[in-house]
Amino acid sequence: MGMTMTQKILAAHAGLDNVQAGQLIEANLDLVLGNDVTAPVAIHEMEKMNTKGVFDKDKIALVPDHFTPNKDIKSAEHCKCVREFAYEHNITNYFEIGEMGIEHALLPEKGLVVAGEVVIGADSHTCTYGALGAFSTGVGSTDMAAGMATGKAWFKVPSAIKFELVGKPSKWVSGKDVILYIIGKIGVDGALYKSMEFVGEGIKNLSMDDRFAMANMAIEAGAKNGIFPVDQQTVEYMKEHSIKEYTVYEADEDAEYEETYVINLSELKPTVAFPHLPENTKPVEEAGEVKIDQVVIGSCTNGRISDLRIAAKVLEGRKIDKGMRLIVFPATQTIYLQAMEEGLLATFIKAGGVVSTPTCGPCLGGHMGILAAGERAVATTNRNFVGRMGHVESEVYLASPAVAAASAITGKISSPEDLGL
Amino acid sequence: MGMTMTQKILAAHAGLDNVQAGQLIEANLDLVLGNDVTAPVAIHEMEKMNTKGVFDKDKIALVPDHFTPNKDIKSAEHCKCVREFAYEHNITNYFEIGEMGIEHALLPEKGLVVAGEVVIGADSHTCTYGALGAFSTGVGSTDMAAGMATGKAWFKVPSAIKFELVGKPSKWVSGKDVILYIIGKIGVDGALYKSMEFVGEGIKNLSMDDRFAMANMAIEAGAKNGIFPVDQQTVEYMKEHSIKEYTVYEADEDAEYEETYVINLSELKPTVAFPHLPENTKPVEEAGEVKIDQVVIGSCTNGRISDLRIAAKVLEGRKIDKGMRLIVFPATQTIYLQAMEEGLLATFIKAGGVVSTPTCGPCLGGHMGILAAGERAVATTNRNFVGRMGHVESEVYLASPAVAAASAITGKISSPEDLGL
Repeated sequence: MGMTMTQKILAAHAGLDNVQAGQLIEANLDLVLGNDVTAPVAIHEMEKMNTKGVFDKDKIALVPDHFTPNKDIKSAEHCKCVREFAYEHNITNYFEIGEMGIEHALLPEKGLVVAGEVVIGADSHTCTYGALGAFSTGVGSTDMAAGMATGKAWFKVPSAIKFELVGKPSKWVSGKDVILYIIGKIGVDGALYKSMEFVGEGIKNLSMDDRFAMANMAIEAGAKNGIFPVDQQTVEYMKEHSIKEYTVYEADEDAEYEETYVINLSELKPTVAFPHLPENTKPVEEAGEVKIDQVVIGSCTNGRISDLRIAAKVLEGRKIDKGMRLIVFPATQTIYLQAMEEGLLATFIKAGGVVSTPTCGPCLGGHMGILAAGERAVATTNRNFVGRMGHVESEVYLASPAVAAASAITGKISSPEDLGL
Repeated sequence: MGMTMTQKILAAHAGLDNVQAGQLIEANLDLVLGNDVTAPVAIHEMEKMNTKGVFDKDKIALVPDHFTPNKDIKSAEHCKCVREFAYEHNITNYFEIGEMGIEHALLPEKGLVVAGEVVIGADSHTCTYGALGAFSTGVGSTDMAAGMATGKAWFKVPSAIKFELVGKPSKWVSGKDVILYIIGKIGVDGALYKSMEFVGEGIKNLSMDDRFAMANMAIEAGAKNGIFPVDQQTVEYMKEHSIKEYTVYEADEDAEYEETYVINLSELKPTVAFPHLPENTKPVEEAGEVKIDQVVIGSCTNGRISDLRIAAKVLEGRKIDKGMRLIVFPATQTIYLQAMEEGLLATFIKAGGVVSTPTCGPCLGGHMGILAAGERAVATTNRNFVGRMGHVESEVYLASPAVAAASAITGKISSPEDLGL
């Protein structure tokens, strides 16, 4: 029986010719990631292990992005813990606030992940790197600790669901709309512990940033990982960002999939996920009159340069609704600078928004835009659970940058088409 | 007996021909200010007063700047309280995050304060507007509530200390160095409940931004207010920013001053205030080797455009020290946009810094750059009390933007001269 793309990567990293779904394997890790929330826990766990140190100082990435610039004393202490560990172990890829960004945007940008690798991160959205044809998944802090010490991790080989993408999305439909549509279709446990393998000729019509957004949200369908095949766009992206050697794995023709969905991208519409689950999706045109207090554009899902370009295109020359709070978070310092040079940040500010330093910020109810009781936000983030962005009586509506920007202008859930765009 | 400039303004606003130090008067208010920390308290107090409403919807300014964009649920609720009050009472000068800034930079910029006015604000640095030749002072939230309801406030007429400024400061000496020098000289209670009246031919050599920084820190010497005479620069500033009519008050020749200090600006040096009081000042050249973890450039004291220009001049083409965290806070959205258009923000980011939305942030240990135990910051802010920027075992060193920028590069307290500038 053939293997899926994910299974092939795992087999190679376990030194096995063949693996099958459900099999327990120990795989070598190409990168172990932690942030300011999870790394301190992992560091304390590692200290208990009495290990001599880290397995490879070049294969650990420490990115303090969640509560930075330090929100409070507690977060300052967490960041200090990570910093001191990084200096003590001479970790190559520790990022101070000025050189950093949101981990899942930063690592690909810095060329730290390429196709064919196995990456674990103590953050659920580590699955993002599947966009590059890597196997990457979120783990707990104890697994991160073991990974930092040994360079290995145990996995149960996942089975897979195939998503065959065909056609070309229309103007205002992005990767975010595609993944929201899929999660709406299969539900938040629709891919539980499985790989979501995206294939098909439609992929060429999705930019790398679209693919990052889609792989990023695989976890929102419960998936172990989401993964894309490597095509010309992927190769160009890696060449631009990385000096690492990559390996292309392709699924066998007789690979087994538990299910196959064919998604015609040309039929999809701008989509929004209503509270309080990412599966509560509807086309924006069916959203009705939902008044919005705050719009958040950014995060590891949609804070990349093309996301900001789309948002700026909608906001250019317009003003946000009276009383609206628009908060834009470029995902990394590099993206921030690029967006500044392209005039995008000026567009956001002239429209009435504010531009934050890169940080996970409001996405997880961390800081920089927390909601009070009764308030509603449209956000390009990835989760809209109860209380995710603040008060338990607040609401988050997930959408693309285009829909978020349009909603900031009208003050209610809207698509750019509602503005005549 | 003649009156000081402050006394003349108060007399006019009390409908009296003459007042003297120590006299209790009730003055009409031209503006009442509150922020997201103090306004909610004042609003609740006002509700208890059973008043019909605010005395004048155009003479109240509500600026949510301390914990915004909302740091947490509590700050979100405070901001919501202010917003709802502003809408209910149709307050003209309520500022949402996209149009806002730090209150004491925002109000002069928006032309809401001009010479000859009486302004109270429920924030200690309300004394900033003395730079424009206005009487302005910080009050408690109860006084703010009474002020919003009645348009009046009781004051004990302050006595005064005269600071006669002569000469021209050298290249890297700014208003911040002057006021730090003065506070070092007279102490943090050196002007307790008195007016600090700045006079002399040296004033023409201080920009409006220099004067704002100096008046802003009058409270750090315990003063009721700090005030400057109106000159051509003041008039130009007001014409550029305001459509309000202004009144110029001049001290009588026989006005009484408790003390007079002559300060030769040409003799001053870049100055730093050591922990944990603004009076612990030394010239930077005598600071010794003090290693720094974080540099903060911004705040109501030094977040204006000329402050950012000076910092950028020092940082241009340079890189901050390894491990340094440099956080720059333009004081208002307008300053942010201006700094972006001038390339200053790009300079900060290329040097390794981050640029925050306008917020009081770390200055008061609020958010966006809190210190852990044992960490040290050089900050262009106004207070370095124990725990002011975070942990009680952290330290804050107050300095000018030039010194802060230079310290970010060397990693220790330094002046631009140490970089050969």
